[in-house]
Amino acid sequence: MRALVYTDTQKLIYKEENNPKTIDGESIIKITASGICGSDMHAYHGKDNRRVPPLILGHEISGVIDKGKDIGKEVVLNPLITCKKCDYCKNAREHLCINRIILGMNRPIERQGGFAEFVSIPERNIYNLPKGLNIKEAPIAEPTAVALHAVELGEKAILKDIKDAKALVIGGGAIGLLCGLILSKFKKCKDIIIVDPNNKRLKECSKYLEANPVNPESDAIAENSFDIVFDTVGLEITRQQSIKSIKAGGTIIHIGLTQPSGNFDFRKTTLQEITFIGTYCYTNNDFKKTLEILSKKQLGNLTWIEYRNLKDGAKAFKEIHDGSCSSPKIVLLI
Amino acid sequence: MRALVYTDTQKLIYKEENNPKTIDGESIIKITASGICGSDMHAYHGKDNRRVPPLILGHEISGVIDKGKDIGKEVVLNPLITCKKCDYCKNAREHLCINRIILGMNRPIERQGGFAEFVSIPERNIYNLPKGLNIKEAPIAEPTAVALHAVELGEKAILKDIKDAKALVIGGGAIGLLCGLILSKFKKCKDIIIVDPNNKRLKECSKYLEANPVNPESDAIAENSFDIVFDTVGLEITRQQSIKSIKAGGTIIHIGLTQPSGNFDFRKTTLQEITFIGTYCYTNNDFKKTLEILSKKQLGNLTWIEYRNLKDGAKAFKEIHDGSCSSPKIVLLI
Repeated sequence: MRALVYTDTQKLIYKEENNPKTIDGESIIKITASGICGSDMHAYHGKDNRRVPPLILGHEISGVIDKGKDIGKEVVLNPLITCKKCDYCKNAREHLCINRIILGMNRPIERQGGFAEFVSIPERNIYNLPKGLNIKEAPIAEPTAVALHAVELGEKAILKDIKDAKALVIGGGAIGLLCGLILSKFKKCKDIIIVDPNNKRLKECSKYLEANPVNPESDAIAENSFDIVFDTVGLEITRQQSIKSIKAGGTIIHIGLTQPSGNFDFRKTTLQEITFIGTYCYTNNDFKKTLEILSKKQLGNLTWIEYRNLKDGAKAFKEIHDGSCSSPKIVLLI
Repeated sequence: MRALVYTDTQKLIYKEENNPKTIDGESIIKITASGICGSDMHAYHGKDNRRVPPLILGHEISGVIDKGKDIGKEVVLNPLITCKKCDYCKNAREHLCINRIILGMNRPIERQGGFAEFVSIPERNIYNLPKGLNIKEAPIAEPTAVALHAVELGEKAILKDIKDAKALVIGGGAIGLLCGLILSKFKKCKDIIIVDPNNKRLKECSKYLEANPVNPESDAIAENSFDIVFDTVGLEITRQQSIKSIKAGGTIIHIGLTQPSGNFDFRKTTLQEITFIGTYCYTNNDFKKTLEILSKKQLGNLTWIEYRNLKDGAKAFKEIHDGSCSSPKIVLLI
């Protein structure tokens, strides 16, 4: 099969690879569309020890069943493969499964990803493409589930109705935009600021999201003024903006993984009773709920997704890397 | 009146001071007993910009009403003075009041503290000494309310019954011991480890607390193994122990203020969905509940409190500072 293979830091080659082998309890999917995620970019920069070249990246996947049950059915994949045996799996927190694997990773266990013609996946990870969701758009289900889980963690932690909360979303990438859209359109939150240093991105987000779009140095981001902050970037500097702008008793939801560690103001966290919650996954129930939301078009139209061909994938990675791409999400078509 | 005055870094002088003036809506309390808190030690080390010398420290106070309503009544003070007007005060989160003042602080507003013969306090901050609680022991109500609030924040955040949780308490000082006692005796948590580098302290805690007492390097503190961690120290190194030892999906409650900032592992926080909550105060309801708990002797006997005379207070501070004092709490008698 043809595949876009991550071969070295900032290097991807479109080349011939072996087709996935048939495995008991799994199906082979002929991939239609595959989204590029921030964590793929993290791997591309050589910074993810779970994704080591050579590897086919990609875990936001839609396609058609090629081998297995229900051949020919259009499907969306939940790329999170869990053990079903540990305490987390048994208690509906399977996203924390101690043996979890994600497609497009090869440490500790290898699972080739979605930037290819075919992929193998356990049957239980396959969901019907819901009515109302185009198969090309369907890879967006995965980051939408991430954002839904994050928003609902925050909703549970804050002590007021999220409709009435003042929210700051840091980062105008896919997760930032999706958190904003879920807050605004699904949770009916009325007071949202979205912040990004890239004006092209802000302009693009503004077409779809009812929020005040600002740069990081804007006066609109007042100190101690937000009930909830979503840091979808995860840099030391964005965490510092989170803790500075959060109100006493507020909640910071941290989804980004850009800088794994760094300095932080624990004094304010303590004196002002701040809750800081890290998250980057979703439960099976979140994934189902996401498909329902997308099926009902509850987040508006998805024309902010940009499409490229798989064979041009290396160029797409490069444009995301150098900031010349303003789209919050690029989906590669196979 | 006689008072123990904090005059300079690591310097306290027992000397004559002016009596507090009578203020409308306030009472003057003749102080019986006043506890030394970790935050008093923080001031003593010159590290608290809210407590600047010269100042009478101390906010864990019991005594007898000397001027005002109910003269002669034995009382315990809630030292947290709030505005009753802000959103926090109106929504039962008065401990986050944006105008809050604590006795024994002088920034931004001066309020002399409890290491003296008399103190002035608003009537609404005065609570009857409950039956079953000795007036000498009563200053312990304040740190007990801090610990109760912390334990109950954690109880709400974790997704299992706290009775069945595996808990790590970092620090064998008053807050650590009290968190342990509340977990064990009040919440019936059966699996507690308490960790402190000071063996004298651990030995003292072990007399009262059903927990496994260990040093920081002990193998008992396994990686990824605790549902909940209470960091009652607040050093960079204790926060690092917290994040290392917490299980996926677990909760860290951070009460200490020793090091205001420092490096932290945000990657694990994010990948493992860790909740980190800062806290150092309590609501009025927590304070009332604490008095009830102490009245019913639900935390066992309080013979771990050590008593000294106010005039010898400087020596007590010095012994806490140099680690030669093994008692988790020293109360000064006036």
